[in-house]
Amino acid sequence: MSAENTVTVWLGPDSDLDEVFELAQQLRVDSVRSSTAAGSGHPTSSLSAADLMAVLMTRHLRYDWQNPKNPANDHLIFSKGHASPLLYAMFLAAGAIDEEELMTTYRRKGARLQGHPTPVLPWVDVATGSLGQGIAYGVGVALAARDLEQQSSRVWVLCGDSEMAEGSVWEALDKAGRHRLANFTVIIDVNRLGQSGPTELGWDTDAYVRRAEAFDCRALVVDGHDLAAVEQALTVADDGQAPTVIVARTVKGQGVAEVADAEGWHGKPLPDDLAARAITELGGVRHHTVRGPQPPAATSTDPVAPVQVTLPQFKTGEAVATRVAFGKTLAAIGARPDIVALDAEVGNSTHAEDFGKAHPERYFQIYIAEQQMIATAVGMAVRGYHPYATTFAAFLTRAHDFIRMAAISQISMSLCGTHCGVEIGADGPSQMGLEDLAMMRAIHGSTVLYPSDATSATALTASMADLDGISYLRTTRGAYPVLYAPDETFPVGGSKTLRTGDSDQVTLLGAGVTVHECLAAADQLAAESIPARVIDLYSVKPLDVGTLARAAQETGALVVVEDHHPEGGIGEAVLSALAAQRLTPAYAHLAVHDLPGSGTPAELLDITGISRTHIARAAHDLVGH
Amino acid sequence: MSAENTVTVWLGPDSDLDEVFELAQQLRVDSVRSSTAAGSGHPTSSLSAADLMAVLMTRHLRYDWQNPKNPANDHLIFSKGHASPLLYAMFLAAGAIDEEELMTTYRRKGARLQGHPTPVLPWVDVATGSLGQGIAYGVGVALAARDLEQQSSRVWVLCGDSEMAEGSVWEALDKAGRHRLANFTVIIDVNRLGQSGPTELGWDTDAYVRRAEAFDCRALVVDGHDLAAVEQALTVADDGQAPTVIVARTVKGQGVAEVADAEGWHGKPLPDDLAARAITELGGVRHHTVRGPQPPAATSTDPVAPVQVTLPQFKTGEAVATRVAFGKTLAAIGARPDIVALDAEVGNSTHAEDFGKAHPERYFQIYIAEQQMIATAVGMAVRGYHPYATTFAAFLTRAHDFIRMAAISQISMSLCGTHCGVEIGADGPSQMGLEDLAMMRAIHGSTVLYPSDATSATALTASMADLDGISYLRTTRGAYPVLYAPDETFPVGGSKTLRTGDSDQVTLLGAGVTVHECLAAADQLAAESIPARVIDLYSVKPLDVGTLARAAQETGALVVVEDHHPEGGIGEAVLSALAAQRLTPAYAHLAVHDLPGSGTPAELLDITGISRTHIARAAHDLVGH
Repeated sequence: MSAENTVTVWLGPDSDLDEVFELAQQLRVDSVRSSTAAGSGHPTSSLSAADLMAVLMTRHLRYDWQNPKNPANDHLIFSKGHASPLLYAMFLAAGAIDEEELMTTYRRKGARLQGHPTPVLPWVDVATGSLGQGIAYGVGVALAARDLEQQSSRVWVLCGDSEMAEGSVWEALDKAGRHRLANFTVIIDVNRLGQSGPTELGWDTDAYVRRAEAFDCRALVVDGHDLAAVEQALTVADDGQAPTVIVARTVKGQGVAEVADAEGWHGKPLPDDLAARAITELGGVRHHTVRGPQPPAATSTDPVAPVQVTLPQFKTGEAVATRVAFGKTLAAIGARPDIVALDAEVGNSTHAEDFGKAHPERYFQIYIAEQQMIATAVGMAVRGYHPYATTFAAFLTRAHDFIRMAAISQISMSLCGTHCGVEIGADGPSQMGLEDLAMMRAIHGSTVLYPSDATSATALTASMADLDGISYLRTTRGAYPVLYAPDETFPVGGSKTLRTGDSDQVTLLGAGVTVHECLAAADQLAAESIPARVIDLYSVKPLDVGTLARAAQETGALVVVEDHHPEGGIGEAVLSALAAQRLTPAYAHLAVHDLPGSGTPAELLDITGISRTHIARAAHDLVGH
Repeated sequence: MSAENTVTVWLGPDSDLDEVFELAQQLRVDSVRSSTAAGSGHPTSSLSAADLMAVLMTRHLRYDWQNPKNPANDHLIFSKGHASPLLYAMFLAAGAIDEEELMTTYRRKGARLQGHPTPVLPWVDVATGSLGQGIAYGVGVALAARDLEQQSSRVWVLCGDSEMAEGSVWEALDKAGRHRLANFTVIIDVNRLGQSGPTELGWDTDAYVRRAEAFDCRALVVDGHDLAAVEQALTVADDGQAPTVIVARTVKGQGVAEVADAEGWHGKPLPDDLAARAITELGGVRHHTVRGPQPPAATSTDPVAPVQVTLPQFKTGEAVATRVAFGKTLAAIGARPDIVALDAEVGNSTHAEDFGKAHPERYFQIYIAEQQMIATAVGMAVRGYHPYATTFAAFLTRAHDFIRMAAISQISMSLCGTHCGVEIGADGPSQMGLEDLAMMRAIHGSTVLYPSDATSATALTASMADLDGISYLRTTRGAYPVLYAPDETFPVGGSKTLRTGDSDQVTLLGAGVTVHECLAAADQLAAESIPARVIDLYSVKPLDVGTLARAAQETGALVVVEDHHPEGGIGEAVLSALAAQRLTPAYAHLAVHDLPGSGTPAELLDITGISRTHIARAAHDLVGH
């Protein structure tokens, strides 16, 4: 076939393997062309997996490229997101994109064909590029499709071999094995070479097999360039009997002698002259178009009838922990069939177990694997569910990279971090979430909520189900008095002014437990004839800038107090809001500066300088009495 | 034995197993007593492992309790940190603490016997309590002891079974197997019950064996309450032949019939009456004291002669990436024998590989396992080394929980995150560190540095080796002109004023790549007769408050520009510093608000609103022209 050949050849499930090989070569050529044109990208990582993907897309991937929203479609996830030239070459072969887009926009400004795939492309479910994540998302997608929807969709994940060093991969395979996800197949492209040299396991395909089997998955070894062997393995994987790991021995740069199995070619486009020789060696440019197996026609899902949700109510003055209100509310909104809940084996502490008791079929126990908990949530969100994933605030840091990537995937989901701050008391610093506000505020497009009582926790927990993006609820371990009547509303971006008068000299700003400390401090200050306004900043991101600005103008002095490290939390959020308004009140910030130890909650609030006593003193100092 | 027995019995390697059983019962009784006295804690999780620890401490743990700094000591790490009652009961049995401390201070305010162990106790190497971490630190300790020091120290890690669901555990065992760490033994206390119910694998000890073996560790199954079997397994583990995983089938609450193997008792102290019955059932209070095997006498390590370090130098004006300067400097300071470097298979991008070429014996390739990279660094710091761990800034988020816990362990180590911000260009958002400043600023006791050129990168990289706590260097992908002469100094907490004059109307504050944009913006502004001061905030935490305050006072207007999300970064650090000074200049903050895509660095700086053009415009608006 010459480089000038422009005849379109249709390929599909009936094509023989010689034709599939032509497709594989086309995917290689197009991977080389697009990355050389872009001046960057990972052609050699694409070449190793081209045969695997050519067989998959012609014969096994049931996908309607014209209707990526068809719920009966299979899912294809490139966990090795850097092989985007291969993925986009597949999109071209499927007729989903055209030649011009591939050749002129890949990796360019404003393009949807980004360096690593993201869901700005309708055929991409999740952003990848942080290794060891695609496989984890795939587990969530497969679980949702099978157990929540009884859809026959299969999930196919292409992994690199380097990423098998990530622990998250084994969390994922553990869950695939445990749930017998027979609709889940991982193809490991064992090309032996990582970014900077040989991978940890090289071509020791047996090691991958032992590990996959130890995690209760079926494992098959194939020569990833023997199309018949690949076809056989994919047919086995497609038998619906077991989660399958295909360990494919491949050659990085396969098909281009000058770079094949050579070090130093990771993440480098071929220079123009080498690209030209490579394309010739690969048989020139082709224009095969693939119409692979088609999914069943989309079953028209009945529009879900609006559901009546009855939220729990709490009496003002009653002592109730916000985590308790969260659990009860989560169970209540579970009346909505799109709500799912995920637990990392702390559901009796976080109270997520309330949902599990009410809706066991939509409650997923992930055990102590926070990365996989978030990944499962993301996978379920891909299938249209709204997940609530919950653990201690401190342990959400374990999944930071997954939360970051979920934001790039533009996933909507809700996280709840319980046991925040030094307020937890005796368990000590390892269990105290003191960094979570900084982490969650800096997540792109996030919403950060932090209720001080059961009524607001209830309202905010319910609101989160309809928020776009990643929303975060921070809850407290201890029980504190309910401050608000059940009919009170808590719009996202709002705040509550709990104490105010015409002559307020200072404003005390808290959230969560520190609201209660601010109220007590206001009492102390009142006794000293210093009237103090008290504001509950239950919405940390977005902040209620209007109320803040008024407080700054009217009282001229602010004390912000938070059970969090000083950096990145409520204090800095307030300063950012005020700076944007060019308001500059007198200001004091009380936060946890020292490394805490054990103690009672009250002792620890006091030792770390965020108790009522410290608030009153700071206010005192600010107003100059 | 009655509850009144107060005769001290000495136990040691020659004690028979009946005597060891008495010790095990003592550890149980003391676990019950201390947690009941404290009113919180995890006695049942302690009871399951008491037999294992009794045999270990009498017969295998070579430890000089009077000299915990002896480098020949073994290491005992409670990865299941919630079993602190058992650990502290062992300390009492060893004579390291006394009865009064255990009974009156455990979990109390100001106590060193915190809810979960931390290194405020001299016999504790690392803080645990975030599960799946102790085992990972142990790998680092064992690697350092064996490969860097040729010490015969062994590392013993007690794991819970629930924590085996964490991927980090498999990253750790992968490294133990790969490095054939024959001085490393993990004992899994398979008590079948987690916090909220049965564990994922229950008593399926074979599953643990299959997995440990698949990761190339030797695995042994024992009845964890059969002292002879435990002794036999520990003897095998102690043979110096292979990394060993002892899978011990145990009963949670063993020895106390009312709670043994019962759900609902995790993390709950026994009420007074039940505690009294338990102590009677366990044979009453004992006062055995253990003197187990002793390590070789501490070999007097020769004081290391001061080493001459010759740092690289760069010509002003030359285009050099800060990551390049980092790599060269790391190789140079490697002349110091206490410096070690760790890579997550991106050393050719981060330039950490320069160290590997110069000092291969102190360069550790962890492959793509960022959690284990940080854990290995922590373990090496425990043995007295100063580690530099490096990957892309974005991927350090993968190890957030390990960094958080390292701060609680009061570890000194240096991290370098390369490829920060949208400046990286075509690879897209998955590779862009846009949350790392928020993450690293909020780490307790951290130092955050962000050089704009090769000279400052060199100086700061070298300075980090002598900083206490966790220090972080943020570096940039692209090459930018060297701004500073080689003799310039860069104290931590300082800044550099690059442009200044008597009539400055505005101050432009940047760090890293945005310093170069600020300089260009100042040129544009000068052309419009707006003199602008330019400050390089290379030290983000601590900030140079004095220089900032002067700039605010003298110019009255600040523009802060950073290649990071708006939350938790340089802008908020500046606002916090100014608020503490009660300074309130006009203020503009340019940061990355939108989700970026691919493009060239210059295009992306401009699209996201942090380029010279945007800086000049913001300054223009502030000064009211």
